[in-house]
Order: sequence, then C-alpha cells, then structure tokens
Amino acid sequence: MPAPVDHDEKRRDLARIAATLIAERGLQAATIREVAARVGFSTTVVTHYFSTKREMLFAAYRHTAEQAQERFNATARSLPGDPLARLESLLPVDEESRQAWRLYFQFWPMADHDAEMADAQRWWNRHAVTLAARALQEAYPEIGALDEKAALVLSGLHGIAVQALFDPDEWPAERQRRMLRTQTRLLLG
Amino acid sequence: MPAPVDHDEKRRDLARIAATLIAERGLQAATIREVAARVGFSTTVVTHYFSTKREMLFAAYRHTAEQAQERFNATARSLPGDPLARLESLLPVDEESRQAWRLYFQFWPMADHDAEMADAQRWWNRHAVTLAARALQEAYPEIGALDEKAALVLSGLHGIAVQALFDPDEWPAERQRRMLRTQTRLLLG
Repeated sequence: MPAPVDHDEKRRDLARIAATLIAERGLQAATIREVAARVGFSTTVVTHYFSTKREMLFAAYRHTAEQAQERFNATARSLPGDPLARLESLLPVDEESRQAWRLYFQFWPMADHDAEMADAQRWWNRHAVTLAARALQEAYPEIGALDEKAALVLSGLHGIAVQALFDPDEWPAERQRRMLRTQTRLLLG
Repeated sequence: MPAPVDHDEKRRDLARIAATLIAERGLQAATIREVAARVGFSTTVVTHYFSTKREMLFAAYRHTAEQAQERFNATARSLPGDPLARLESLLPVDEESRQAWRLYFQFWPMADHDAEMADAQRWWNRHAVTLAARALQEAYPEIGALDEKAALVLSGLHGIAVQALFDPDEWPAERQRRMLRTQTRLLLG
C-alpha cells in the first residue's frame, strides 16, 4: 500500500520548486507546466494544489519568507547570546539565502502594478523591522527609539544585500557580516 | 525645408521613452514596436537607432544612470555648501527619481543570467560609491577610511530607496532625507 500523501507537505514541496525556478529564471519562466516537468507530475496534478500560476507565485513568495523566518528562529536557538547573528541570517551569505534574495528581486517589480503583491511585500518588510527590533533590544537593552533604530539597521541590511547579490566578488559573506556589525554598532551609537 | 534631425538627440529621446516604458510596465513590455507606437514612428525608424531590443534596453539603462549623474551634478552646483544634498538627489523622492529606481528594479534580475548587464550594474554601483566618497570628503574633511565609509553610507541609501519604493506611504521624501542624514551622521561617528 502506498503511504498516504500529505497534502500540505506536497504543496510546500511544489512551492519550494516554484521558488527555485523563479530565483533561477524569473517569473515568466515559472509556469505550472515547468514546475510539473521538474517534479515529473502532470500539470493536472500541480493544478490540484495551485489552480492558477498566480496562486503558485504567491505560495512561492510566502514559502521563501517563511524559510527566512525559520532561519532567523533557528539562529536564535543556536546562538541565543548573539542577537546580531539573527540579523546576519537574513543576508545573502549562502546558497539558500542568495536564492531568497534573488526571488525577492524578481517579485519587486510586480508590486508596481499589483496591489496584492505590494501588500505582501509591505507586510514582510514591516515584519522584518519587528524581528530586527526584538534582536536589537536584546543586544542593546538600554536602546531608545527602538522602531526608528530597527528601521535604520534593516535599511542598512537591505543595502548590503542589494550590493552583495549583484557584486558577489566584492561582497563575500565575511564582508557582509562585518559590514552589518560595523554599521549596526555605528547606527546605535 | 525641414530642420535637420539631430541623430544623437533623437536617440536620447527614444532611450528616454524606452526607460519610461520599462519603469511602468517592465522589460517584457518594452518592445521596439511599443516604443515606436508611443512616438508615432514606424518600427523601421526606431530600428535605425536601435537594431535590437537588447540594444534599446541598454540605452535606456545608460540614459537613466546618466540622468541620475546629472541630477547629482546639478545639486552640486545649486547647493555647493551642502554635499549631503547630492546624495539625497539619488533617493526616490520625486517622479523622475522614482522612475529611475523602478527601472533599476526591473533590470536587477536580468544581471543574474546576463554578464554584460551584471557588468553595467557593477560599474554604476561602484561609480556611485566614488560619487558618495567625494561628497563625504567635502562634508567631513577629516574623514578616514573614506571608501569603506562611502560604501556604508551608500548601502544605507540603497536600503532607504528599496523600502521607499515599495512602501511610499511610510516613506515620504521628507522621511527619506531625514533618515539619510541621520544614518550618515551616525555612520561617520
């Protein structure tokens, strides 16, 4: 007897594959047909999980954001005494995190003419400010104007990520991490 | 007798129109046919200036980068005593500069699978670090480690721009400028 298929798990697998495809080849290339081909399913099976390409794209975006959140949480558990390491986990320093940023870049232009996508991106960005604020408060318990400081630090993180993604030779992981620590220290005075 | 057509000027006009189209509707939509339709020319006339869509896209990118450089230079002339105003001129604070950033976002994913585009983006990014370094040296003549500081400040500028573009309600021009000054002051100690 075959094992019962876990619907949610299979849906997550397909979202993960769609995310890889988007990061590698862009939103145009990430069709239901192409995802089906990558997993060896028929398109009918994939449409059982995502009835439209659009639904699949949003699932891929959410999957990537959730994965980033999990990296953040895992770092909090493994390095509880180093809150800034949690922020480092958001930088494009390895294959998984570089893929996440490549995917964000693919989606960014979409927000320009798609209110639902713009909402999703705003939500994730504001959520990231909240995550940063909690990490900073742990690192600097006396910190004031927490939200503004968190926005400053996250802004710096965005800037490092943008540059690192398109100029990896100039921005190895070590430089990204050092830069994030330096600028966080400076920004928090 | 019709006035002689200035070839370079007409080419610049077409690059400007292509840039607007890219910022508004993306790289896919920016075809030679669509640019021709916007100016009321035949596609044959447009291909006299750009033999391929790719050539037109690169011209639109260069046009936008040159326009940003001109804004920077114009600000240096009009506010010679305020070097940070030059950096502010790079933020997405009005329609022209927002369009420039929207265009950059459209092009960023292209660098992932296009070495020539990646080179063009790296060049512009490194050039921006040089511009920032000059402005900072004027604002803080005693500054040390100039290139590293310029990279930090530009990184922060990138971060503000990314967030402002997709969350304009949270990031009006005034907040962007204030944030850039605050973070520059903090980053430079």
